[in-house]
Amino acid sequence: MKIILDVMSGDNAPLELIKGAVMAVSDLNVELILTGDKEVIESCAAENNINISNDHIEIVHTTEVIAMADEPLSVRRKKDSSMSVGLKMLADGLGDAFVSAGNTGALYAGASLIVYRIKGFRKAAIATVLPFEKPTLLVDSGANINVTDENLEQFALMGSIYMNKIFNIDKPSVGLLNNGAEKTKGTQILQDTYARLSDLENINFIGNVEGKELPTGVCDVIVTDGFTGNILLKTIEGLGSFLFSKIKGIFLKNLVTKFSAAIIKKEFTNFKNQFDASEYGGAPLLGISKPVIKAHGSSDALAVKNAVRQAMNYINTGIIYEFARLTNDEKKESENSENDNE
Amino acid sequence: MKIILDVMSGDNAPLELIKGAVMAVSDLNVELILTGDKEVIESCAAENNINISNDHIEIVHTTEVIAMADEPLSVRRKKDSSMSVGLKMLADGLGDAFVSAGNTGALYAGASLIVYRIKGFRKAAIATVLPFEKPTLLVDSGANINVTDENLEQFALMGSIYMNKIFNIDKPSVGLLNNGAEKTKGTQILQDTYARLSDLENINFIGNVEGKELPTGVCDVIVTDGFTGNILLKTIEGLGSFLFSKIKGIFLKNLVTKFSAAIIKKEFTNFKNQFDASEYGGAPLLGISKPVIKAHGSSDALAVKNAVRQAMNYINTGIIYEFARLTNDEKKESENSENDNE
Repeated sequence: MKIILDVMSGDNAPLELIKGAVMAVSDLNVELILTGDKEVIESCAAENNINISNDHIEIVHTTEVIAMADEPLSVRRKKDSSMSVGLKMLADGLGDAFVSAGNTGALYAGASLIVYRIKGFRKAAIATVLPFEKPTLLVDSGANINVTDENLEQFALMGSIYMNKIFNIDKPSVGLLNNGAEKTKGTQILQDTYARLSDLENINFIGNVEGKELPTGVCDVIVTDGFTGNILLKTIEGLGSFLFSKIKGIFLKNLVTKFSAAIIKKEFTNFKNQFDASEYGGAPLLGISKPVIKAHGSSDALAVKNAVRQAMNYINTGIIYEFARLTNDEKKESENSENDNE
Repeated sequence: MKIILDVMSGDNAPLELIKGAVMAVSDLNVELILTGDKEVIESCAAENNINISNDHIEIVHTTEVIAMADEPLSVRRKKDSSMSVGLKMLADGLGDAFVSAGNTGALYAGASLIVYRIKGFRKAAIATVLPFEKPTLLVDSGANINVTDENLEQFALMGSIYMNKIFNIDKPSVGLLNNGAEKTKGTQILQDTYARLSDLENINFIGNVEGKELPTGVCDVIVTDGFTGNILLKTIEGLGSFLFSKIKGIFLKNLVTKFSAAIIKKEFTNFKNQFDASEYGGAPLLGISKPVIKAHGSSDALAVKNAVRQAMNYINTGIIYEFARLTNDEKKESENSENDNE
């Protein structure tokens, strides 16, 4: 299996990406293609005493980098960027999956424009696992500002399959993020989505879910548009670090409280780490015809390795075929019902 | 000054509402009119040894109660409910403000239909103070699912005046909740709102604000539609209690950690209380022609007293006249520019 890794991407590029690549090759049975500036990669590895001369690591030299502030379509303009080249290689069948910790908008645009969506899917969605009482998949966590009820239905179906195949959850429960439990709540699109999801037989739809219930692990998949998903995800990140830093402040107040902190340090750090996105690896772009994984921008080596592992699971579980079957089954069904009418 | 208090409202009615009323009368220079079932109020007071025979407390008997699950227009149907009667009394000038911990949808509908909005305001908004690094006013926190850029502009202006008058903040900073900093981010309505707010001279608009920045106290007022506001507010509540309960779990794990917990208990509880909505009192319905305050559903006596104090501030600071001037000034300005054209 060959995973393409954009080593010029994210806040900690290229060092943590290179370290993550070496960890992945050593711990997982995988071959990696690194896209990035060859000279930069080799001198960074040399400076940090990292051995990248390895049969399982190939470097494909690229001259450009898509910055975090670049607009999404820069993925087209910067044709020789580590991201664009990686996506093109994936589209051309030179690798089995692509992992990048870079600009989310550009990655989403590039995946849709270069790798293409699965036939029958009007929109792809970014799916992010939220660190709640149990892992909760947020779809869409930021790609699509404007969605239809049909888009949201597809997000729900893909999310359900993802949690079943990757997290081994039998009949994942799916909730629709809304401002109240009743089916009449929210915008017209949400009301229509509620009706659509209620009609589906191949999904365990539990109805509307409010923000307050989410952290208690009330569902395995939470469906929303990319605007609300972005606000939700960013608020969780922001509030998490705010609360943890405040509590740290209490512990560091004086010698006595520092003593108290020392006692629970391990447990507290474990919990903080559990709440740290990197433990869950990256966010898949559901609906793209080949596996594209967005690793968190602040990914360290471990997070990079986890994202590579996730890309491997994505391939091994055959998720994309399951997605493709969704729209094929629909097509067949509508063909059958047309035949019935004859 | 006379405040009307709906004592049948909220999760802890009527006991905590009655206790809060007695606290308010004793601590603040105020007269209260309690709406509710007289017999229920008097027997609850007697059972709990609360003396409500007081020159400053009057009871207006009502026979109905709007439940939390009732739909918003129940405020019209249940004409003899503690909420509807209170709102009618406010509209008729029998009190200076109305405070309820009841059904938010019904209170919003009742305030709009019975007390009316200020002339020139197409929508009223619920404003809630978020317990961040510094108090941050969220407008709209749940009333309006669908908004226009004009609505959002008015929410921003009212929020700015509120934080200036009630929290004594000079030139409050106003942010627009969005999925990125650039002015091209978000829906068309948000882009249009960005342009409108940038043009205003009487407001300190700092641009788009992301969910991640909010807890650090990046702005005094955060403007959004009522759907996103609801998701934001509920998620903050849910995540706060999730994290605090997890940390409590760590402390209670064994004798040693319990010992550690005892050391920082006071500081930790202080911080948790600061994060508890009740400390900030209630949420005003901005844009209604008379003061209507929504106290938190789980309000205890202290929170009820704070909500009464907030209603008094609302009256004393003359905020509603400031709001009314906004649309009057606009009218005059457009009249002037019409004259200029002649």
